[in-house]
Amino acid sequence: MNTFGKIFRLTSFGESHGKAIGGVIDGCPSGIVLDEAFIQSELNRRRPGQSNITTPRDEKDKVEFLSGIFEGKTTGAPIAFAIWNADQHSKDYENLRSVFRPSHADYTYEAKYGIRDYRGGGRSSARETIARVVAGAVAKLVLRQLDIEISAYTSQAGPIKLAGNYKDYDLSLTETNAVRCPDPQTAVEMEKYILQIKNEGDTIGGVVSCVVKHVPVGLGEPVFGKAHAELASAMLSINAAHGFDYGLGFDGAEKRGSEVNDEFYSENGVIRTRTNNSGGIQGGISNGEDIFFRVLFKPVPTLLKDQKTVDSQGNETVVKAKGRHDPCVLPRAVPIVEAMAAMVVLDLYLLNKTSKF
Amino acid sequence: MNTFGKIFRLTSFGESHGKAIGGVIDGCPSGIVLDEAFIQSELNRRRPGQSNITTPRDEKDKVEFLSGIFEGKTTGAPIAFAIWNADQHSKDYENLRSVFRPSHADYTYEAKYGIRDYRGGGRSSARETIARVVAGAVAKLVLRQLDIEISAYTSQAGPIKLAGNYKDYDLSLTETNAVRCPDPQTAVEMEKYILQIKNEGDTIGGVVSCVVKHVPVGLGEPVFGKAHAELASAMLSINAAHGFDYGLGFDGAEKRGSEVNDEFYSENGVIRTRTNNSGGIQGGISNGEDIFFRVLFKPVPTLLKDQKTVDSQGNETVVKAKGRHDPCVLPRAVPIVEAMAAMVVLDLYLLNKTSKF
Amino acid sequence: MNTFGKIFRLTSFGESHGKAIGGVIDGCPSGIVLDEAFIQSELNRRRPGQSNITTPRDEKDKVEFLSGIFEGKTTGAPIAFAIWNADQHSKDYENLRSVFRPSHADYTYEAKYGIRDYRGGGRSSARETIARVVAGAVAKLVLRQLDIEISAYTSQAGPIKLAGNYKDYDLSLTETNAVRCPDPQTAVEMEKYILQIKNEGDTIGGVVSCVVKHVPVGLGEPVFGKAHAELASAMLSINAAHGFDYGLGFDGAEKRGSEVNDEFYSENGVIRTRTNNSGGIQGGISNGEDIFFRVLFKPVPTLLKDQKTVDSQGNETVVKAKGRHDPCVLPRAVPIVEAMAAMVVLDLYLLNKTSKF
Amino acid sequence: MNTFGKIFRLTSFGESHGKAIGGVIDGCPSGIVLDEAFIQSELNRRRPGQSNITTPRDEKDKVEFLSGIFEGKTTGAPIAFAIWNADQHSKDYENLRSVFRPSHADYTYEAKYGIRDYRGGGRSSARETIARVVAGAVAKLVLRQLDIEISAYTSQAGPIKLAGNYKDYDLSLTETNAVRCPDPQTAVEMEKYILQIKNEGDTIGGVVSCVVKHVPVGLGEPVFGKAHAELASAMLSINAAHGFDYGLGFDGAEKRGSEVNDEFYSENGVIRTRTNNSGGIQGGISNGEDIFFRVLFKPVPTLLKDQKTVDSQGNETVVKAKGRHDPCVLPRAVPIVEAMAAMVVLDLYLLNKTSKF
Repeated sequence: MNTFGKIFRLTSFGESHGKAIGGVIDGCPSGIVLDEAFIQSELNRRRPGQSNITTPRDEKDKVEFLSGIFEGKTTGAPIAFAIWNADQHSKDYENLRSVFRPSHADYTYEAKYGIRDYRGGGRSSARETIARVVAGAVAKLVLRQLDIEISAYTSQAGPIKLAGNYKDYDLSLTETNAVRCPDPQTAVEMEKYILQIKNEGDTIGGVVSCVVKHVPVGLGEPVFGKAHAELASAMLSINAAHGFDYGLGFDGAEKRGSEVNDEFYSENGVIRTRTNNSGGIQGGISNGEDIFFRVLFKPVPTLLKDQKTVDSQGNETVVKAKGRHDPCVLPRAVPIVEAMAAMVVLDLYLLNKTSKF
Repeated sequence: MNTFGKIFRLTSFGESHGKAIGGVIDGCPSGIVLDEAFIQSELNRRRPGQSNITTPRDEKDKVEFLSGIFEGKTTGAPIAFAIWNADQHSKDYENLRSVFRPSHADYTYEAKYGIRDYRGGGRSSARETIARVVAGAVAKLVLRQLDIEISAYTSQAGPIKLAGNYKDYDLSLTETNAVRCPDPQTAVEMEKYILQIKNEGDTIGGVVSCVVKHVPVGLGEPVFGKAHAELASAMLSINAAHGFDYGLGFDGAEKRGSEVNDEFYSENGVIRTRTNNSGGIQGGISNGEDIFFRVLFKPVPTLLKDQKTVDSQGNETVVKAKGRHDPCVLPRAVPIVEAMAAMVVLDLYLLNKTSKF
Repeated sequence: MNTFGKIFRLTSFGESHGKAIGGVIDGCPSGIVLDEAFIQSELNRRRPGQSNITTPRDEKDKVEFLSGIFEGKTTGAPIAFAIWNADQHSKDYENLRSVFRPSHADYTYEAKYGIRDYRGGGRSSARETIARVVAGAVAKLVLRQLDIEISAYTSQAGPIKLAGNYKDYDLSLTETNAVRCPDPQTAVEMEKYILQIKNEGDTIGGVVSCVVKHVPVGLGEPVFGKAHAELASAMLSINAAHGFDYGLGFDGAEKRGSEVNDEFYSENGVIRTRTNNSGGIQGGISNGEDIFFRVLFKPVPTLLKDQKTVDSQGNETVVKAKGRHDPCVLPRAVPIVEAMAAMVVLDLYLLNKTSKF
Repeated sequence: MNTFGKIFRLTSFGESHGKAIGGVIDGCPSGIVLDEAFIQSELNRRRPGQSNITTPRDEKDKVEFLSGIFEGKTTGAPIAFAIWNADQHSKDYENLRSVFRPSHADYTYEAKYGIRDYRGGGRSSARETIARVVAGAVAKLVLRQLDIEISAYTSQAGPIKLAGNYKDYDLSLTETNAVRCPDPQTAVEMEKYILQIKNEGDTIGGVVSCVVKHVPVGLGEPVFGKAHAELASAMLSINAAHGFDYGLGFDGAEKRGSEVNDEFYSENGVIRTRTNNSGGIQGGISNGEDIFFRVLFKPVPTLLKDQKTVDSQGNETVVKAKGRHDPCVLPRAVPIVEAMAAMVVLDLYLLNKTSKF
């Protein structure tokens, strides 16, 4: 199951050390100007080697479109694209041919399929998310025409977290620091902490928060296919994601109905809510307020430290990562979260075109 | 989109005050003995009026099977079922015809479809989950043959929460109290708190935890369709659900990789992990350890208190629930969480049959 | 796989001698007036016992809607319906418990599922098509608003066939005779022939032709999901259907490109074709001309004659139908063909709403 | 909708004069040896320039696999592939920028999407079928392990047709002549006729027949997803296909039930039918006999003759093909029909794994 979406759909392909990572976008409306520079800039946000707190692997990740575009516009035909792999240190992984790295997908792939491409994690590598960033960028180009904006940022890195929510920060500052935190002071602390962890050969996880603004009322399906269920499914398909909440999240679990219900009022003929503990979604359907949600990421499981494990015969052994790895996925997860959100919102938008006659 | 699942699929139908709630189960393997008493007992766990902390609405919720069963067994044909609605106090809702209850689906349904059945929430009513409990019970009957067991329980009700995880409690005690908490002492506190909240006309939310035992290795798809993404999508399709995490959840966001990685070892030829921060899922695929996850529920939005809101013309008004309502969904959400989990695990099991030749 | 369609979807259920035949329609646009009298009239066209050339089984086939309708209109919620079975002569089928009727689905169901409801064919009974007629009638109510008209008719019954195509006849005459042939004189011959075959305990097949008028340009997807491929899939899902062609059919296989190409011209600013050998579909997409196609039906396999066969142990035996059966499915297939066509055209219409921005 | 299949799925991409034609195969079981030489040989059967009765365009159509293969075997990951376009005479098509060729997809694409890649038909070009041949070849590699064999051949070219069915010919002779007809004498006549037609600047259509041997009992779904409905949908998605029948086809429409019913008997404990008018499928499910069906192809619409038409403004004009075109698609359609059949049969096989527990 390498296809995501109902109308706007991405079929993703590729392994870390194969020839290419890529995908096919189907169901994209015709007539959209394909701004390749924008798409590449989104990929650059995801790319390794962009700062001292990400892996120093220098991957250019240049996207090449193979189909579906004519004279610079989408035609309704499937949009295939590839990002050719390069700078592959496959030999760094030779020792993993028959060893299962703790908390990686090595063992489960081997058990499920009886075979696995062990080089760089193969299909389970986070390089797969390149395809999502491309498809998400295309989705953003469509959503732009609806004035829909999607902004994700790092809200917690290990123990260091932002106290407020998205309204408390200037999100235009997110891209001004390597950790992608909109609060410059917290960003400094986060970076310092990540570097310290990196120097210890260890890793951390954290939380990416995301807000979607100017969402029309009516997106999302009532029972299955609720807007937040689609977002959760999208977010939890990202490597290392371990949790999702929206609106009133886990932190608000202690509150009472009378504290969190969102009172309706009318503003210039538009029905609004005074608070937004619903996170912009009621009964699975967008209500016109900002959609916001959080995604929890576990620490990167690849450590530059000895770890006990077993090989495929069940023999005890020790594994220690070689190669170049991220101490923390958060900065590079931010554009991936945005990309998946863009795909979901566009898909729900297109689907909603069929709800009334 | 009222269909859930890829192979084992439920199509759900019905409104709170319509003729019936029901569904069609498609893709159920043939030859399964349909234990109707068991299915009814699962429905009884969900049914209103079962204790003093749930709504006193006395709904029998008796399931009637319409197809797909022959001489007591499934035939591979679609299994349709209906639960006939009764005890409808539709007049209790007449005042809601043109008023939008805060944090309900009234406004978004109206905006999306231009029409809504306002009686008892119509399609957005939690009565829809009856269909899920039936389908989940059928799925459990299949999973039984694989010795797979699913146990959910209330782990947090408002501010009162269990300190430990599922291994710290005897889950067979879950059904011994009205709140469905496996720790009898905490259960007493939770019940007391819920009653107090109820008396104040208010409501609370909380958390349901769930564990799936004896899961075979290999369930779940690598990229989209990851086991935890499917579970998240399932859980967040339940009314009032606002969050999901698995394994190392939001509470562990501060931990380091070296603290949470799950070391592999071999136990009598079976590859196991010493810890289970992965929650039984690695790379989206079950690794044979227990799958465990949490579902966050917001407080019931229906209050027996005045709340400010607007009507469909945007005029300010006040709404106060009549009728009989739950102060807290958790006790009745427990069997629904189990049902959705059963559907997901069976679906992944059937899909996995196609992964190797 | 008991669900048909992508956006407008029917999930069908029920066995010939079970409690009910029914279905769930999902994805129907909201706000459509559900004209129950019209839907029932469509069912009456399919119903047994309507003439001396159909089975004398007297089934009322009264549809009951269970959900999805509020104050007479569709709400966007799933529309469930049931037709309760009655007048069941299950005992007529007791002898078929372990005998496989030639050219029926008895053997393949038994082999596939290891169990089958043998009464009246169980799930393989043509009674299942009741669900399609209901869903098709709902689709017709939607298509009416687009002025799209669907007309099927019997064009060949055994060796007796119409010489011309749909343009040569007054299709309003189709319902004036029992065989549903728009040419009154041919209808008389067909009826005479069917009665003769019936008296011999034998059966015949034939061809149903269908035309869809006023189809907007643009319906159908270019590669998979071509309009004619969807129609073929729909038609060949009808019991006893063995073939499908559209536009220039099998009869025109000998013609040259220069004879059959459809020349374009402009008529008051609308681009039209002078001939319509394309059957209203070019490159899988409707071009605004009439869509027309044919469906081949094999003879009913149930004979009132001795036929050699085997039982489930492989022992030779003889089977002769008891009960009341159609000598020819064509008259009752006509409304089913229309129903499936309506579902396909509406589905393609809704899907096409997403093709441009 | 550029994805075909439920479990074994092809997502196809590419335009005639774009960078590449290709696809992504998802759901292929792991552990299959990817015999690239075989796959290329299948592509060579489809490739232009292979004989004097096909287009002289010399396209190498060399497939390049981009993912999903490790050490020569499938891994369960998606298998992406591309065939790079070359030898493009795009200028041959410049005159078609705003002209609609009769009986082509030019007008409908333009109307549906508001934009089209007019070069060589763009997405509507039969070059798209390259992707199907590759995916079909992969499917054949899997089916080989089940001993399932698929053989298609030209059974009618214009007015010249084979009198018998597949049992009357030695199908191993199909590849011995350019027209792919298993009867050498008829093949000579067909070739002569096609050359004559070609010299006149005209084109013809005809019929491809196909037989699938050694199909296990039980493939196909009972109601929607019947084996023959899936085959029909697959075949009618091929460019220029206009009809499909199976078993007793249109030619047998005049026969009686007593003439065509397939009597069961037992042969060494295996239940067989003495005749096979059911075409190997009963109730939508394979019965173990040979599956056979026919596909009707219309004449190629591209003529080397003047044809009247209009441009996108509705102005009358004349179009005459330049470039190199097939006078008859049949020889090259044979491997495409086989490829689609292989995909359908494998898909049904995989799906059937889930039908019993």
